[in-house]
Amino acid sequence: MCTAATYKTNDFYFGRTLDYESSYGEEIVIMPRNFPLNFVNMGRIATHYAVIGTAHVAQDYPLFYDAANEKGLAMAGLNFVGNAFYRDDIDGRDNVAQFEFIPWILCQCANVTEARTLIEKINITKTQFSPQMPAGQLHWIIADKNDCIVVESVKEGINVYDDPVGVLTNNPTFDMQMFRLNDFRGLSPKQPENTFSDKLDLTSYSRGMGAMGLPGDLSSQSRFVRAAFVKMNSRSAPDEQSSVSQFFHILNSVDQQRGCCEVAESKYEITIYTSCCNTEKGIYYYTTYNGHQISAVDMHKEDLDSAKLIAYPMITNEIINFQN
Amino acid sequence: MCTAATYKTNDFYFGRTLDYESSYGEEIVIMPRNFPLNFVNMGRIATHYAVIGTAHVAQDYPLFYDAANEKGLAMAGLNFVGNAFYRDDIDGRDNVAQFEFIPWILCQCANVTEARTLIEKINITKTQFSPQMPAGQLHWIIADKNDCIVVESVKEGINVYDDPVGVLTNNPTFDMQMFRLNDFRGLSPKQPENTFSDKLDLTSYSRGMGAMGLPGDLSSQSRFVRAAFVKMNSRSAPDEQSSVSQFFHILNSVDQQRGCCEVAESKYEITIYTSCCNTEKGIYYYTTYNGHQISAVDMHKEDLDSAKLIAYPMITNEIINFQN
Amino acid sequence: MCTAATYKTNDFYFGRTLDYESSYGEEIVIMPRNFPLNFVNMGRIATHYAVIGTAHVAQDYPLFYDAANEKGLAMAGLNFVGNAFYRDDIDGRDNVAQFEFIPWILCQCANVTEARTLIEKINITKTQFSPQMPAGQLHWIIADKNDCIVVESVKEGINVYDDPVGVLTNNPTFDMQMFRLNDFRGLSPKQPENTFSDKLDLTSYSRGMGAMGLPGDLSSQSRFVRAAFVKMNSRSAPDEQSSVSQFFHILNSVDQQRGCCEVAESKYEITIYTSCCNTEKGIYYYTTYNGHQISAVDMHKEDLDSAKLIAYPMITNEIINFQN
Amino acid sequence: MCTAATYKTNDFYFGRTLDYESSYGEEIVIMPRNFPLNFVNMGRIATHYAVIGTAHVAQDYPLFYDAANEKGLAMAGLNFVGNAFYRDDIDGRDNVAQFEFIPWILCQCANVTEARTLIEKINITKTQFSPQMPAGQLHWIIADKNDCIVVESVKEGINVYDDPVGVLTNNPTFDMQMFRLNDFRGLSPKQPENTFSDKLDLTSYSRGMGAMGLPGDLSSQSRFVRAAFVKMNSRSAPDEQSSVSQFFHILNSVDQQRGCCEVAESKYEITIYTSCCNTEKGIYYYTTYNGHQISAVDMHKEDLDSAKLIAYPMITNEIINFQN
Repeated sequence: MCTAATYKTNDFYFGRTLDYESSYGEEIVIMPRNFPLNFVNMGRIATHYAVIGTAHVAQDYPLFYDAANEKGLAMAGLNFVGNAFYRDDIDGRDNVAQFEFIPWILCQCANVTEARTLIEKINITKTQFSPQMPAGQLHWIIADKNDCIVVESVKEGINVYDDPVGVLTNNPTFDMQMFRLNDFRGLSPKQPENTFSDKLDLTSYSRGMGAMGLPGDLSSQSRFVRAAFVKMNSRSAPDEQSSVSQFFHILNSVDQQRGCCEVAESKYEITIYTSCCNTEKGIYYYTTYNGHQISAVDMHKEDLDSAKLIAYPMITNEIINFQN
Repeated sequence: MCTAATYKTNDFYFGRTLDYESSYGEEIVIMPRNFPLNFVNMGRIATHYAVIGTAHVAQDYPLFYDAANEKGLAMAGLNFVGNAFYRDDIDGRDNVAQFEFIPWILCQCANVTEARTLIEKINITKTQFSPQMPAGQLHWIIADKNDCIVVESVKEGINVYDDPVGVLTNNPTFDMQMFRLNDFRGLSPKQPENTFSDKLDLTSYSRGMGAMGLPGDLSSQSRFVRAAFVKMNSRSAPDEQSSVSQFFHILNSVDQQRGCCEVAESKYEITIYTSCCNTEKGIYYYTTYNGHQISAVDMHKEDLDSAKLIAYPMITNEIINFQN
Repeated sequence: MCTAATYKTNDFYFGRTLDYESSYGEEIVIMPRNFPLNFVNMGRIATHYAVIGTAHVAQDYPLFYDAANEKGLAMAGLNFVGNAFYRDDIDGRDNVAQFEFIPWILCQCANVTEARTLIEKINITKTQFSPQMPAGQLHWIIADKNDCIVVESVKEGINVYDDPVGVLTNNPTFDMQMFRLNDFRGLSPKQPENTFSDKLDLTSYSRGMGAMGLPGDLSSQSRFVRAAFVKMNSRSAPDEQSSVSQFFHILNSVDQQRGCCEVAESKYEITIYTSCCNTEKGIYYYTTYNGHQISAVDMHKEDLDSAKLIAYPMITNEIINFQN
Repeated sequence: MCTAATYKTNDFYFGRTLDYESSYGEEIVIMPRNFPLNFVNMGRIATHYAVIGTAHVAQDYPLFYDAANEKGLAMAGLNFVGNAFYRDDIDGRDNVAQFEFIPWILCQCANVTEARTLIEKINITKTQFSPQMPAGQLHWIIADKNDCIVVESVKEGINVYDDPVGVLTNNPTFDMQMFRLNDFRGLSPKQPENTFSDKLDLTSYSRGMGAMGLPGDLSSQSRFVRAAFVKMNSRSAPDEQSSVSQFFHILNSVDQQRGCCEVAESKYEITIYTSCCNTEKGIYYYTTYNGHQISAVDMHKEDLDSAKLIAYPMITNEIINFQN
């Protein structure tokens, strides 16, 4: 499935893993300010914030997986199979198709507060992008440097949750994911005291025993707990290199290795890519399963007033630095 | 602490993480065939197998952390604090100082079978490399493409264990580490069947639930179990890029993120470097905490008949591939 | 806190533990058919089903903890601190005070279906029994031999859940308790197969390894999972003695031992009593912390047409059967 | 399998569960001082300490499962399948058959110190009691009010371990069982502090969260950890009733419920009996699976100078105390 995370040092970083058994063909896409957006029900937006992210481009339309705009607002859609529920159009609501939700927010909102306002009026519809592409079942994390929310469209309606952890995975619903953290409140980066019994001489035979009980499997609830622990306890210098490096270490804690999650006979889910966007500088960093080197695309090196999508292929092979 | 692992596809790969709160200054070192080795008690070996690995070089002597020789035999020393026990010299034994053990084996043995023979006669002594450098408390993993053993010098003597997993971490002793795997025999990369109760409709709400119970913390026993599960279930194409990539994914499963293992006030153990040596081709790949790109040194690009150490600095900063 | 459970063999059994750090003075109480009940808002019920259960009697009113009526419907209230929410009176609803809920249902309903109908109209109010006795924060399990539900009055309203497990503990809400069972779907009374790796010889070193991962602590979620596993896998002969014995074994799996749950300095929560009512025969069995022998009160040995409460003291000391 | 435990208040208590899928016919047996004991290799002991315990009597010989002598020394044999190793007779050693070990110690030793001395010279032999009764694979716990040891006869020899917990179950070997407790040193009867992250508001939604992580299954290692936690944290008044009651609560924490441990198609291991001997008063208390009332036999009510075994049948049915 997938994991999204945020991280704040001098700048604000936002990224995610995309975990799946096959790729749809992703690219690093910059959507400049004048790229025209025609919404199914919401009319045309001719000029908007520039956006950078990973997208599958179909019919010249960027189907964003995760992205950030030039104001520092970022957003990602993650699988939410079985819980996501989208509706038909409803009169009096902003009827935004599921596939339009990321551009709808990122084109218009400079921060989470503005996004919340838009979401109050929204109805996320089941309208498909094309007959061949059924609506993915997703929920979304939206974050800026000050705030983070999760948006879930379920049978009961649209739920907007504060996300104090800045992490999102998949099922179950976000309130239940958060609640589970209570079970791990006694975990710590420090060695545990012996509170089992003061009459027994129980030793710390290894460093790192304070997080014993932290789940190590690849299920979505376990990835949520693990990424939350690593993120909340992460330390790094605040400069760009240290922050970006640390961010990839956070998401590496939920890396899906080929072979460990069999989804069908001899089909394995893996972490196809991992992204880390410096949302303030507009630089989109990423690695791929077979591309350990960090690659990057800087939106501000492009003409952001253009009307055309700019796309860079994702580097999916190892570029090895031979020292001799 | 540290984790070592092996992986076999077309070639045989051997590597490790070095986890610690500070670095002693490591380099990628090639010890050519004619670099003279003067052992404390075992005389001089003037000509030997060439060796490549990571070492701290002191007084022109390579103190190897992990290394492989040109015959494909590889070896690494990992922390074993509290259990390691070295002796004074014993008459009639091969008295090899703790710091000489890796060169002693890799210079003379073409495979694990030969290493076993040498170890039958060995006494690992507490002799220090220098007064300033007390003997580290270590145990060792030795592997070739067919076999893997763990060597532990403890109070009771020297124990040599078969290591069918090809993984080693730190405490407790290897037999206990292995025994713990029994507790996880029901884990699987596949979704679990509902055996809790056939009267309840319990759902698989996420992919990857088959390994629920796998420990996610950084203690040595938990890293052993996790690395064992990932390694034993790893799948990759057998070519060099796929194998090397998969190897780093295996060891990334036990990556130590800065902040998650506090060893003293505001001091954190991290994965300083991760190595992966193609022991058949003599290529030593590695990454560092702030160096996600895979770097490499190829021993066969050097003059292996030389008498001088060849050293390459470890690249410890991010080399980012900007696509624009 | 507390755990309730049901069990069905030839007859239907319903019971609970009461876990707390002190007792309010409980008795085994039979409320005969003509004991007059004056509800705060719902008028007087002069004749009703006879009821047996454990209650604290105050001002000649039975404040039932758990009870069953002569028709075989049973009900228990369990702590639900922080989630329970009771309202002021609401026009047009059946305004039943929290402390009246058990008699309201058991006096009028012959089965869960009838209880569901009454609950559709109910508003559970915060009216106190007396100024000195604030309303306990509870949720309820209601069961007959065919059906089992959980009723929770929370901020959002009144939720009625099907309870296919027939177990209830405390927090969190019942839907979340049930969802957690999914995480344990791979547990089993049988030994697990080795699915970790077919290349490793992992042994079953002990019987009973199939339920590894089952939580053993006293928190409410862990007790729910453990009691659910034991109950769903329980086997016994269908006769009275075997069924009653097995029922106490089920609830013993969540017994709270003095010392293991410290709720304040040197104050410990313990299992004050454990009950098991044969709801078809009207026999109420129980044990207490210091009373391991099963005691029993049979409602049908009393005059059930009486207008007066009948009470038996709870036996709270060990009656030891000395054989010599 | 089985669990043994000790408990000390004013007096010293020793007992065990016997967990198995079928019974061999156990009785409460008193072996008076003049019951003659003819050892296979060690000659005849005509007069000895009186002993009380549970035994299967065959050919007028008490095959004790657990017992205590009139001096307050107690001993129990527990399954140790796969690890137990008994030898042929060895010249110069005290060759004691496996089935004679309990009487050998309890007849001659007044305390653990004396038992240690005898064990220094012992060789536990594989001699069978009869051709039809192969030697059980056992290890033993021996305790008095001041000391507790575990004795294991394995391939490497006889190991005597201090047992500071006063608990024994089955596999693996005792040193490994004890080592595992280190993993649980952070558990506590108190609520855990939130050390996960001081930036998250993680709540204690239930009492008893301090022991989260305690295993709840029936495997021998999990029972050891659970019984150790309950025993080490147990609190009770020091009088006889409170102590005996608490003791049964300790062992109830590892009760095996019928259905939860399937050892063969439709065959289930259960806790056949649970014993608790006041070793100072010579009173042997016990319960059985279908006998929740505590029964007792007092050795000092018998003629301890007799030469004949005294046996009381185990009460295996519920004696229910009907209050009306």
